[in-house]
Amino acid sequence: MREIVEAHPINRRLCNRIGDDAALWQPSRSHRCVVTTDALVENRHFRRATMPLFDVGWRAMTANLSDLAASGARPVLATVALGLPERFTADELQELYRGMLQIASKHGCAIAGGDTTRAGELFISITAIGEVRPSNVKGRGGALPGDVLAVTGPLGASRAGLHLADDPVLLRGDVAAEAQAAHATPQPRVAEGRWLAASANVHAMMDLSDGLSTDLPRMCAASRCGAAIDDVPVAPSAAEAARARGEDPAAYALAGGEDFELLIAVNARAFRHLSERFYKRFRRPLHRVGLARQGSGIVRVKGGAEEALAATGWDPFR
Amino acid sequence: MREIVEAHPINRRLCNRIGDDAALWQPSRSHRCVVTTDALVENRHFRRATMPLFDVGWRAMTANLSDLAASGARPVLATVALGLPERFTADELQELYRGMLQIASKHGCAIAGGDTTRAGELFISITAIGEVRPSNVKGRGGALPGDVLAVTGPLGASRAGLHLADDPVLLRGDVAAEAQAAHATPQPRVAEGRWLAASANVHAMMDLSDGLSTDLPRMCAASRCGAAIDDVPVAPSAAEAARARGEDPAAYALAGGEDFELLIAVNARAFRHLSERFYKRFRRPLHRVGLARQGSGIVRVKGGAEEALAATGWDPFR
Repeated sequence: MREIVEAHPINRRLCNRIGDDAALWQPSRSHRCVVTTDALVENRHFRRATMPLFDVGWRAMTANLSDLAASGARPVLATVALGLPERFTADELQELYRGMLQIASKHGCAIAGGDTTRAGELFISITAIGEVRPSNVKGRGGALPGDVLAVTGPLGASRAGLHLADDPVLLRGDVAAEAQAAHATPQPRVAEGRWLAASANVHAMMDLSDGLSTDLPRMCAASRCGAAIDDVPVAPSAAEAARARGEDPAAYALAGGEDFELLIAVNARAFRHLSERFYKRFRRPLHRVGLARQGSGIVRVKGGAEEALAATGWDPFR
Repeated sequence: MREIVEAHPINRRLCNRIGDDAALWQPSRSHRCVVTTDALVENRHFRRATMPLFDVGWRAMTANLSDLAASGARPVLATVALGLPERFTADELQELYRGMLQIASKHGCAIAGGDTTRAGELFISITAIGEVRPSNVKGRGGALPGDVLAVTGPLGASRAGLHLADDPVLLRGDVAAEAQAAHATPQPRVAEGRWLAASANVHAMMDLSDGLSTDLPRMCAASRCGAAIDDVPVAPSAAEAARARGEDPAAYALAGGEDFELLIAVNARAFRHLSERFYKRFRRPLHRVGLARQGSGIVRVKGGAEEALAATGWDPFR
């Protein structure tokens, strides 16, 4: 496996291995380092019966790249700790690494080594390190009452993909393809995160890994504010999956985990200009979802009335 | 758990959290970053029946600090990914973190966050990051034929402690205490590693995590040289445990994993002076174990005759 990783040009360029146990690199002088860690465990975060190992590797790496994106950081390198079950083959290991390498190298991130051991169940623990200008660091605690809350893309497609895996006739055609891709090979918003972090009008940023209904309360708690959600951008596949299951599309999208879109809080006066520039740069809209406000309540505005937003997304301990 | 980690002064001083997902720090300008990852899995690397969780946390952190020591690096921060079984309690989690924090803070290493999830078996995956002057980077590939091979302490005590845990009457008194401490709370040689890395006469360095008989061949393979071992410093507890088990003490110590002493290759002409200075600084001797030499053979010299050294140490896949 080491051979595959080391043969990849990005890994030769960005850092040196010092034996098997350590990797060395030079952070650029004007930047801070950001570090993030995410672990995936078989039968908790994925099932091998329904998910190819390429996708497992891709998703594990994406969870980390998305955390760096939310920090406005440029990915530099990652280390990978693997626990492998007894019957795990070399071909399976290669598929897992292929997925990790493909999405990591797309975003300029080297795999700098790690540790591999036997385990009763497959686990993948990745630590990724990136660089960010000190002035660009946002965190999730900077939202101010009155800020526009926005997301970098429509929500719920990954959840639709999860449901599609369990029920292959749930969706067909384009929406099936959208859901399947969003679930199997989600895209971390690295370029978008760096671009948004460079704007002083963006007050807070985080990635949506557990669903807007779960992650927005985290931003609000860190920022000591409340929020009102009045518009939920629903991915076409999520809308169709919700209808097929007899559920409210917006509620379905609010509860969808692993979309990996970014949630930002933006100075309200700057939002229109920022979203126009965002569209020019990325050819996708910034979707306004609501407003931050005083207090601690988080509500959804529906037909003029307000109802409390329930945290319906992913909780690893539930 | 986050509260415990954040309350520790070293964690407040060294880096900032950006929400739950990322930590931020400033590497000093004249240094390179070193990163290392190690994972421990229940019933593979430890058994909870015979090892308190404080010790499990200590050992997991020590494996990483020892890798940084072998790179000559100053530890800066670590991230921790945990897989916790269903019945794992908050008190148990606290014990695990207490062990990690105690040895990490002793060496100036902050715990900067990580990820916690459910798993079928307990696993602990730690990534540690340190800093090193570019000129001090050694790696394991620099040994030259003629170099003196030396270790920073006597070997085999951790193995004696493992055997003592299975057979409580194997050792008594001081040697029992030595073996127990070496196994439960081993000391990474961080200060020694930084000191040795600063010497241009030290050509290669690595830590002994899997036993000299397993790790020396790794240094030789990376350095494209052979070696002859003619003197194995055996810890008193290892000597007594070997005798009680009817084994050769030197062979017992050669096979002992997790000693976490450093193995170095030193310019032969500089060894005496270096070891005197080492003794003055650390009040412990550098133990000469043999010589690096041409070719690829690794032998043990015993009563004037040479025999091939068999790799008898720890292999996570065996």
